[in-house]
Amino acid sequence: MTKHLPASTPLEPFSKRAQRGELLSANCPSRDVLKHVTSRWGTLLLLVLMGGVHRFSELRRKIGGVSEKMLAQSLKSLEADGLVSRKSYPTVPPHVEYTLTPLGEEVGKHVEALANWIESSMADIMEARRARSTIPGEDSRS
Amino acid sequence: MTKHLPASTPLEPFSKRAQRGELLSANCPSRDVLKHVTSRWGTLLLLVLMGGVHRFSELRRKIGGVSEKMLAQSLKSLEADGLVSRKSYPTVPPHVEYTLTPLGEEVGKHVEALANWIESSMADIMEARRARSTIPGEDSRS
Repeated sequence: MTKHLPASTPLEPFSKRAQRGELLSANCPSRDVLKHVTSRWGTLLLLVLMGGVHRFSELRRKIGGVSEKMLAQSLKSLEADGLVSRKSYPTVPPHVEYTLTPLGEEVGKHVEALANWIESSMADIMEARRARSTIPGEDSRS
Repeated sequence: MTKHLPASTPLEPFSKRAQRGELLSANCPSRDVLKHVTSRWGTLLLLVLMGGVHRFSELRRKIGGVSEKMLAQSLKSLEADGLVSRKSYPTVPPHVEYTLTPLGEEVGKHVEALANWIESSMADIMEARRARSTIPGEDSRS
């Protein structure tokens, strides 16, 4: 039987918690930020905006499957967290541009690293899925 | 007016797409992996499992607010992707342990980097939220 950690062992990366968010606490506001940044469209938005300034229509075209409503909502959440900046120009028709703030670029780098890992590991993951589905009883147990 | 990228510009980090997943495509299976890894409980699970082997009850205790059902479901998704390994020992009562696979440790590092960034940037994010809420009309516009 593998030795497991006692319940009281503090997690390594969260050992210095003064003035930090605490994602493992149900009521910490950092949970909201995690939600915005890792929502399906939030993640893809950050990825695309890492490529530079975009108009709303460009974002919508690049992010396959996103609806106008979900895109607007995700942009708004990221804007409220200070990660995305919105600039509106008084032209006819109105011209609106979205870009990452310096804070958004920081988190964007982490999201990009995660996304790149997923994209480049798909062969391994698909292989793991296949291997698992051939173990008798493995996909039917509760 | 800021110059914006033409719609046809390929995104830098995704330029070499041979045999890779493609997160911006609505139907790519990498979207499912992104969903599992960045789901609220999936993310927190990966973070906790970066600390070592855990039993179900330990995971539940450490992840504030997670229900038994959601924890089981998230573990199953990550297991199916080959990121989490489950070992069951034939004891009474049954003893079940969860740990990251080598693939899971790889993605766990990226999730940990993202989580650490969020936790340590909460002061800046809260400041951005406060600043935004004091700009007249900023939170009421559509």
